[in-house]
Amino acid sequence: MKILFSFYPKRDQQTRLIENFPQAEFIFQKPLDEEALKTADILVTYGEDLHASHLEKADQLKWIMVASAGLEKMPLDEIAARNIILTNARGIHKIPMAESILAHILSIKKSLPLMAKNQRNGEWSPKLNPTELFGSTALILGTGAIGSEVGRILQAFGVHTIGCNRSGKMASSMDTIVSFGQLKEVLPDADIVISILPSTEETKHLLTYEHFQCMKPSAIFMNFGRGDVIKEEELLRALTEERIAYAVLDVFEKEPLHKEHPFWKMHNVIVSPHASSHSSQYVVRALEIFSENLTEWLNESNQLENIIDLKRGY
Amino acid sequence: MKILFSFYPKRDQQTRLIENFPQAEFIFQKPLDEEALKTADILVTYGEDLHASHLEKADQLKWIMVASAGLEKMPLDEIAARNIILTNARGIHKIPMAESILAHILSIKKSLPLMAKNQRNGEWSPKLNPTELFGSTALILGTGAIGSEVGRILQAFGVHTIGCNRSGKMASSMDTIVSFGQLKEVLPDADIVISILPSTEETKHLLTYEHFQCMKPSAIFMNFGRGDVIKEEELLRALTEERIAYAVLDVFEKEPLHKEHPFWKMHNVIVSPHASSHSSQYVVRALEIFSENLTEWLNESNQLENIIDLKRGY
Repeated sequence: MKILFSFYPKRDQQTRLIENFPQAEFIFQKPLDEEALKTADILVTYGEDLHASHLEKADQLKWIMVASAGLEKMPLDEIAARNIILTNARGIHKIPMAESILAHILSIKKSLPLMAKNQRNGEWSPKLNPTELFGSTALILGTGAIGSEVGRILQAFGVHTIGCNRSGKMASSMDTIVSFGQLKEVLPDADIVISILPSTEETKHLLTYEHFQCMKPSAIFMNFGRGDVIKEEELLRALTEERIAYAVLDVFEKEPLHKEHPFWKMHNVIVSPHASSHSSQYVVRALEIFSENLTEWLNESNQLENIIDLKRGY
Repeated sequence: MKILFSFYPKRDQQTRLIENFPQAEFIFQKPLDEEALKTADILVTYGEDLHASHLEKADQLKWIMVASAGLEKMPLDEIAARNIILTNARGIHKIPMAESILAHILSIKKSLPLMAKNQRNGEWSPKLNPTELFGSTALILGTGAIGSEVGRILQAFGVHTIGCNRSGKMASSMDTIVSFGQLKEVLPDADIVISILPSTEETKHLLTYEHFQCMKPSAIFMNFGRGDVIKEEELLRALTEERIAYAVLDVFEKEPLHKEHPFWKMHNVIVSPHASSHSSQYVVRALEIFSENLTEWLNESNQLENIIDLKRGY
């Protein structure tokens, strides 16, 4: 059994894999070696280097592990056609992303940017008009691993959580749940609206300018999912008209954000450069998920975690 | 029964008190009216306007409610000598303070000040080297209402909490507890050291330069209690020598912090202008505590909440 990595884990992480799975042959290299792929049984990749053409010659390939959560660049149809199993590292982002989301919310609520400005000016100004997270309401679009982790922590702060997903099916750490179709009914109640939605047929342009007209003028909108959940021109219009108080944007239609983009200078926009999922623990956690699945695989079990439904794309 | 306020609650808050307690006569005025105090049974004050001399003529006074948590300016010995009951609004600060403390911790961990600087420069720089709160250890000096609330929320983030108080008596939301005397034993384990200690004989200068020598170079020190828990020159020395990574200071030996003070410009110091307890809900909550106690008082119960031990001062 040959396991091909198209990135380099740290030396000690490589050693641990080799020691724990003596029955496998590991090849660590970068970029993706097309020759080695021809005879590999398993590919472990970050998900940005595999094209449909690679698969034509990968006759042995039975399982692809993507060591991230996003799958937009993967040739899903070709993977499906060849009956290859695809798994990802879903859940890997939940801790750093929930911490990042809470960091931005609390920073805004406690006026930390103004406090920092005052410090730069040597100005003792205790009147910062902070607001409280306690007792507020958050609407969380996307109720998977990340959304539920955000909900769990918000609940610890005394926040009422409304989850929103495709079906309206109950999810953990949500006080109530609504479906995409019911969005406009609950938007007026939300002090914070957080999107963690992936990019799929159903989420693309799910939000429009009209949704921002339904929000409280004091609302904070956070996009930590994918940029195409709203057309950028509509988001820009809502923010220019100050329909809401703040937008914290970690994702954009086009990344990196263009140097001249108006978002950079808008007083009600926080530009987070797609950084919210970054973590020093990233590869450690991805390899934990992979190792658990590899153990199952070697036992010829089909109980792998995080198998992707190739039709739905998540 | 005459109840004297030395500050003005909002009109609707005054009305609610008058309606809910028809058996009492309420006088709302500011500053403290010495004539009215002579015939008052109960005084409600923010705690900064009452001097020992006032009490000499306050023959009817049986109960003083301080609508804050700090009691440093109260004439405790004279209050004790006249058998007056003193209560405060302990617990009123726990929500805004816990939220402020978490805001600063997460802002530092997720490099939000650097992200904001990059945004001002129009710079897309995803490499912000964030660290994780999850799995870290916090040492909380002071395990009362605020300390326990901070501990509770930190635990929700997956943080190991070590409480520290005078006696080493167990407190809620702490994984372990140590006494003041054991401080140096646990300091090397702490990623975050948070003081919420009041100013008392036992806490004054409790921390010294040597304590900072015991801390991790990556540690964050937060003083949200009182400035005199450490001599400022020793704190300044530890920070100038970069013994730790960050100090977030909400309190100082002398407030406001002098315009020329070095803290303002130090890259490893966040100056919070004694603002962490501020809340739009402050008076609402103080009056809730007062109303519950007043109900008890009118029922001639001695079960008042938040009675101060006048010898200990808290």
